[in-house]
Amino acid sequence: MNKAIIITTGEELLHGRTLDTNSAFICKELYETGIEIIECITVGDDIEAIIYAIEESFKRCNIIFITGGLGPTDDDRTVEAICRFFSLKDTVDENARIRIEGLFARANYKINKKDYKMALVPEGSVVFKNNKGHAPGFLIEKDNKFLIAMPGVPFEAEDMFVNEIKPYLCQRFNLKKSDGIIFRLTGLRESTINEIIEKSKIPQLGKWGISAKTGVYEVYLSLNDTTDDPRSIEEMLKDIFKEKLIDSSFSSPSEELVFLLKQKQTKLATAESCTGGLIAKMITDIPGSSEVYNGSIIAYSNEVKQNLLSVSETTLKKYGAVSEETALEMINGLQKVIQYDIAIAITGIAGPGGATKEKKVGTVCFAFDLCGQKKSETKIFNGDRERVRNLSALYAINTVREFIKK
Amino acid sequence: MNKAIIITTGEELLHGRTLDTNSAFICKELYETGIEIIECITVGDDIEAIIYAIEESFKRCNIIFITGGLGPTDDDRTVEAICRFFSLKDTVDENARIRIEGLFARANYKINKKDYKMALVPEGSVVFKNNKGHAPGFLIEKDNKFLIAMPGVPFEAEDMFVNEIKPYLCQRFNLKKSDGIIFRLTGLRESTINEIIEKSKIPQLGKWGISAKTGVYEVYLSLNDTTDDPRSIEEMLKDIFKEKLIDSSFSSPSEELVFLLKQKQTKLATAESCTGGLIAKMITDIPGSSEVYNGSIIAYSNEVKQNLLSVSETTLKKYGAVSEETALEMINGLQKVIQYDIAIAITGIAGPGGATKEKKVGTVCFAFDLCGQKKSETKIFNGDRERVRNLSALYAINTVREFIKK
Repeated sequence: MNKAIIITTGEELLHGRTLDTNSAFICKELYETGIEIIECITVGDDIEAIIYAIEESFKRCNIIFITGGLGPTDDDRTVEAICRFFSLKDTVDENARIRIEGLFARANYKINKKDYKMALVPEGSVVFKNNKGHAPGFLIEKDNKFLIAMPGVPFEAEDMFVNEIKPYLCQRFNLKKSDGIIFRLTGLRESTINEIIEKSKIPQLGKWGISAKTGVYEVYLSLNDTTDDPRSIEEMLKDIFKEKLIDSSFSSPSEELVFLLKQKQTKLATAESCTGGLIAKMITDIPGSSEVYNGSIIAYSNEVKQNLLSVSETTLKKYGAVSEETALEMINGLQKVIQYDIAIAITGIAGPGGATKEKKVGTVCFAFDLCGQKKSETKIFNGDRERVRNLSALYAINTVREFIKK
Repeated sequence: MNKAIIITTGEELLHGRTLDTNSAFICKELYETGIEIIECITVGDDIEAIIYAIEESFKRCNIIFITGGLGPTDDDRTVEAICRFFSLKDTVDENARIRIEGLFARANYKINKKDYKMALVPEGSVVFKNNKGHAPGFLIEKDNKFLIAMPGVPFEAEDMFVNEIKPYLCQRFNLKKSDGIIFRLTGLRESTINEIIEKSKIPQLGKWGISAKTGVYEVYLSLNDTTDDPRSIEEMLKDIFKEKLIDSSFSSPSEELVFLLKQKQTKLATAESCTGGLIAKMITDIPGSSEVYNGSIIAYSNEVKQNLLSVSETTLKKYGAVSEETALEMINGLQKVIQYDIAIAITGIAGPGGATKEKKVGTVCFAFDLCGQKKSETKIFNGDRERVRNLSALYAINTVREFIKK
């Protein structure tokens, strides 16, 4: 059995200024593959502490993953620590050097002497390309012990792990595929999901658990019988949760929405007040969204609501900017300036200011034009500004997603 | 000097399904108080692993914080592990028992035998009340070694730490207030910041380090001499970094920008293509931004660029949608529809698709109207879609921020 320990390095982690997400990412990627993570350790940018952690870890495991400390500055000391531990010299990886020079040239930056430090690896390493940044990762093998170093910046580490390191490990350690299934649900409460699952056949399939991210729930199911057909399980989940289930090909409601809009050749437009561009951002996060998304009017001021979205002064005065009446006029006004099949208009009080006697913080009014069918509604969300804005954007996206899916 | 190690327990952490936020929280709370966190360790729900971690940790520190495993179920084993390590019996804490029974009665839940497990603490503990949940925390002291146990659920642990544990530690260890300074820089490269700091007086003041978040660098400085006046240090930093320094009252460039716009009574408007609402979102993340931000046109399609921003078909054909010419016409068009003093227009190729022979992914064209002064420029950013969009938005925000600050 391969046992592994993850060591993350960085003063910023021990000072609590940066949250370590790399350990959880590696744990998730290796879950049930045959490499068992037995411990995660965080240490500072301190050579002695790094060497001590490596020494102690190798007493209990045969694989160490180490992240961080591969950058150009003086407090980046991981390569030095690893070289000392294995009694190796460091050497410039030529591919990395060329890549780093290319990146600097492309961005029109003058390369500093210190920047070359990022191309250093211990001699005799297997080198892993950094597709998203500068410093490469590497693997050192000695006496059946393996140490794999990767950058600390999460998007660099994640890309390197998935595209370079994991394929290498799969071959080297003959990793098996994980027997877990993860599915995502939205538009349901956690306790409701819990009840539905308990009454379903899901518990017979294996151990399960729910974790929550603002408005989206991830259910994890670790299969008892690995011969169960994942496709028939997915069909069962669709039967149970219907449009609340996000198809397993997508990692977020907005990703599925963009896919559904493309499939139906349907164009979306938005008019946002309180979310101030968040819905547009979530849609345009998805590559290829330009095919189905024409654009948005961010009408943060009443002036823009009146001038660009033709909301009448009477409506604003009589019902207020945060009202279903205003939201509906925003939809009507949007129709005149941006072509669409489906549209979302949103106006609310994200807080902390802006509450009135009648309307408290978290009050959000929506209007939808769903292929000609117009409707409006008001929701009240609990939480701070960030949470109210996120839940509002997600509710709007999900309403359209469920409309198309139904 | 008090040295501490944080041990977090839970299979869900080693499986990567739950992100450990407790360690970072405790680290932040204790930063520079006189208790130095030297390491964080995560282990599973395994008695032997927990005991081993405690044993090894006490060889190097005098304080251990341990979170998780205080719940009612069979995989909650922290109390048992701690009792075995210290050779102590467990005992029911009467206050906790009464509290747990009360909470169950209030919620109309029948209390199970297992639920009483949550009231167990090692005999002779100092007990910390759990104001947000069931299981109490506790402290055991033996031979000048201290072990503090707290629940794993973050909002229970955080509340307990701040309201029960930290006040106790302050008295017991005579904790001092933090002597660290953190400052943020933007618009400079990491290696350049490193060079500037090395040539400055900063290294004489104390240990320092840099951590990076997309486009913003945090420099922390741990002061040698705690009598240094923070205000004079801030003045020195302003002299060194000028407009690149984000004022210490603000946690992000957009927060400082909103403040500066308010101070100068200046209104901002934006026209976004490739960032698709991200700039608008970053501005409206800040409470009170409605005072200075009128709105935006998200012109994701050429049709919207032409209809709403009056970009001419000739320009789009001759120079392309991603060109400084188009960006400048977007600014001019924006002026006709949204009132502003300062405006940003942005159009680019965020990728992964959309590259042409002449224009590669990451090419972003900006136009600015800075109180009547118009200018345009083209930048090339490295990275994936998310990074290109983030760096573009930040560059735009920062250009305006520096213009006002200068």
